Amino acid sequence: MQHVDVVIVGAGLSGLTAARELVGMGKTVTVLEARDRVGGRIEGGTIDGRPVELGGTWIGAGHEEMYGLVEELGLETFRSWNKGSILLHLSGKQSRLASHKGATPKLNPFALADLAQGLLRWERLATGIDPARPWAHPKAHELDGQTYESWVRRNLRTASGRAYFRIVAEALFSADAQDLSLLHALFYSRSNGDLETLISVDDGAQQDRVIGGSVLVAERLAEGLDVRLGRPVRTVAQSDSGVVVTTRSGEHHRAQQVIVAIPPTLAGRIEYEPLMPAWRDQLTQRLPAGTVVKTFATYPTPFWRDNGLNGQVISDQGPVKVSFDVSPPDAETGVMLGFVEGGDARRWQRLPERDRRRAVLDCFVRYFGPQAGEPLSYLEKNWSAEEFTRGCYGAHFGPGTWTSYGDILREPVGRIHWAGAEYAVDWNGYMEGAVRSGRHTAGVVATQLD
Amino acid sequence: MQHVDVVIVGAGLSGLTAARELVGMGKTVTVLEARDRVGGRIEGGTIDGRPVELGGTWIGAGHEEMYGLVEELGLETFRSWNKGSILLHLSGKQSRLASHKGATPKLNPFALADLAQGLLRWERLATGIDPARPWAHPKAHELDGQTYESWVRRNLRTASGRAYFRIVAEALFSADAQDLSLLHALFYSRSNGDLETLISVDDGAQQDRVIGGSVLVAERLAEGLDVRLGRPVRTVAQSDSGVVVTTRSGEHHRAQQVIVAIPPTLAGRIEYEPLMPAWRDQLTQRLPAGTVVKTFATYPTPFWRDNGLNGQVISDQGPVKVSFDVSPPDAETGVMLGFVEGGDARRWQRLPERDRRRAVLDCFVRYFGPQAGEPLSYLEKNWSAEEFTRGCYGAHFGPGTWTSYGDILREPVGRIHWAGAEYAVDWNGYMEGAVRSGRHTAGVVATQLD
Repeated sequence: MQHVDVVIVGAGLSGLTAARELVGMGKTVTVLEARDRVGGRIEGGTIDGRPVELGGTWIGAGHEEMYGLVEELGLETFRSWNKGSILLHLSGKQSRLASHKGATPKLNPFALADLAQGLLRWERLATGIDPARPWAHPKAHELDGQTYESWVRRNLRTASGRAYFRIVAEALFSADAQDLSLLHALFYSRSNGDLETLISVDDGAQQDRVIGGSVLVAERLAEGLDVRLGRPVRTVAQSDSGVVVTTRSGEHHRAQQVIVAIPPTLAGRIEYEPLMPAWRDQLTQRLPAGTVVKTFATYPTPFWRDNGLNGQVISDQGPVKVSFDVSPPDAETGVMLGFVEGGDARRWQRLPERDRRRAVLDCFVRYFGPQAGEPLSYLEKNWSAEEFTRGCYGAHFGPGTWTSYGDILREPVGRIHWAGAEYAVDWNGYMEGAVRSGRHTAGVVATQLD
Repeated sequence: MQHVDVVIVGAGLSGLTAARELVGMGKTVTVLEARDRVGGRIEGGTIDGRPVELGGTWIGAGHEEMYGLVEELGLETFRSWNKGSILLHLSGKQSRLASHKGATPKLNPFALADLAQGLLRWERLATGIDPARPWAHPKAHELDGQTYESWVRRNLRTASGRAYFRIVAEALFSADAQDLSLLHALFYSRSNGDLETLISVDDGAQQDRVIGGSVLVAERLAEGLDVRLGRPVRTVAQSDSGVVVTTRSGEHHRAQQVIVAIPPTLAGRIEYEPLMPAWRDQLTQRLPAGTVVKTFATYPTPFWRDNGLNGQVISDQGPVKVSFDVSPPDAETGVMLGFVEGGDARRWQRLPERDRRRAVLDCFVRYFGPQAGEPLSYLEKNWSAEEFTRGCYGAHFGPGTWTSYGDILREPVGRIHWAGAEYAVDWNGYMEGAVRSGRHTAGVVATQLD
């Protein structure tokens, strides 16, 4: 039987970061990865022979650990394309929005005032949340006892204002406004700066990309680490003397401590011996993953740029309500990324392939003109259909979860520790959060080793 | 390898009912049960050497299948004790409430009018829900986009009125008002008649008990069936030729069709080959089990009866907010049942045993006087801590779940079918619902057999 200081379950960004930290401290570490690749929710793919990011893509303003890591690993970033206007399709009206953070959308004065007031109210509420302890807010129970949708209905008066806030929810959580605890949405907004940072490119969460693809970060992190692929973990048994982690094929790995660095809904399916405390199991029952499909269409050129558009869309008519230009840095081809998220994804994914493709391309045509209807290639990545993910971008908290079980989210259970983007205090849900969580957990685990 | 027509996973009431139906049609059936006993969420225990129901207890008005089954199995029922008054402890005031269904609580006129209007509004809303298709209600998205708590805050004006509605949620769902989709609460109310039926003893859901304990129903159902105990199922693999069900110990069972008759959160942890469709897996990620601990205290006599009390409490101060007299039919001892539910259970279960007991008995003393502080025996049953249940009474739907994935709840996936109290159209969540669901699914499966 293998015997190391720490076994890490999952070779995503948090697991790999934790492994690297611990190895750097002279500890022995084995990373067990279910898939035949590293990266987890970051994955490299190709379309027309060029790299494309099937999962996590952007590094944003303030993501200092990620920028540091990219540099350390000998990689480089480039700016996301952001020249030209954002297209707004709200309440049956089309308009253009300047691409800088905080630009004023061209809406009628009522909608504009409504939206501005909504954003102000939102930020005022979010400012009071401590992302390390959302449950400790004086009004936590009230905020956690309602949906984000209820807040939108109460605080926004115009159809366009409401639509805008709902699309933001879908884009950030790949869940609908109705699925989300208001407290959770506020926490998330606060953990990532503010709503405008989250949806922006320049000075926002979508600012930069890694040349060659974000998966290179995971791949380079994995170099030199003891990462074992194709090892889905089935049981984690702890005792006074240590932990034994067993894979589906019956391989045993012995360690002093273990870090479970996989999404909560998967962590909840591992068989633990002794059983997880009732409250821990009930917590993971309440952390469903979002629903998102990334769709890509390629064209000979990013032709929308010629029309003064930056490729970004905010629309209230799906299935693609949010899109981005993810063409390669040299723009030798045009690559349009359409997100199908939340309720749209839940319905659309059940259609036959042909109808799914048609529905996506219809959106692109509506936004960018008839040229968009004839792509060179079309590609989909449905993260809900992945056995070892079960949904992206991450887990969301429905009403009642933060205030009932939130305080144990980051608590180890004996020799078992947790890491991942869902556990991050700052930049929760992003690659930055995954790295920070992995680093933090590695630090905690190191203090527990002989 | 075993080869039968149907393998049933789970020897709870629905699984056993389905098995019995199919065997009655001449089909061969094996039931695989993880535990070393049958009954699932029905379990017999003893306190002071007398039988006590650790799980599902009552048969209620309208539970025709259960009454029929009890008779068929040679069992008998007796009336739940209901003489004397219910105690109301709301907003720091104590009062008594007559024990007949629909009795008017002794509250101040404002609270009374508030409560009456709230109940009226509730029933008016619930009447419009088709329990077979809650997602098809014209306002389904609006109702599913808010919590039951949001509805309570908007529709009840007095502290007592709000408290009453919240306690009802806790008692019915073992979840807090803030955790529940309004649409789900309305569905549940409608599926079970109405709110008053659900909380009543005579003419209500708590009307009768089985002499000797409800577990006898499961035990008698199992007689003559091929039930294999101690077989937790790990994988279910289907192909064109059939299904292979494999237990943790590696035992294979081959069948034409399989019925998974375990709670959704457990059904979601089975490894399916091929994978469940993305939407099915995401549905089970969104069906957490409630949180409830049944606590029992026994006394030489049911002394509260002498004070004109029937042992039932509705209180806004926990951890025990709801209690019942579950003394044996001869009342040779007094058995008080205290429910610790929802948020109370989530906090209280983390206390040391001594503090838990103290907190429960303090409630009983507050309700029934100092005599209640010195029980002969004290017993707890925490259903969230059970590996093969993970929470009771059942799964609840948070906001957004019915309208996004509700339509596939009862849909088989190839050769895999579902049964259990959660899948019942009528009497959802009760033993009656489990039996009806088992019977219905058996009928569907029978049409699929060669």
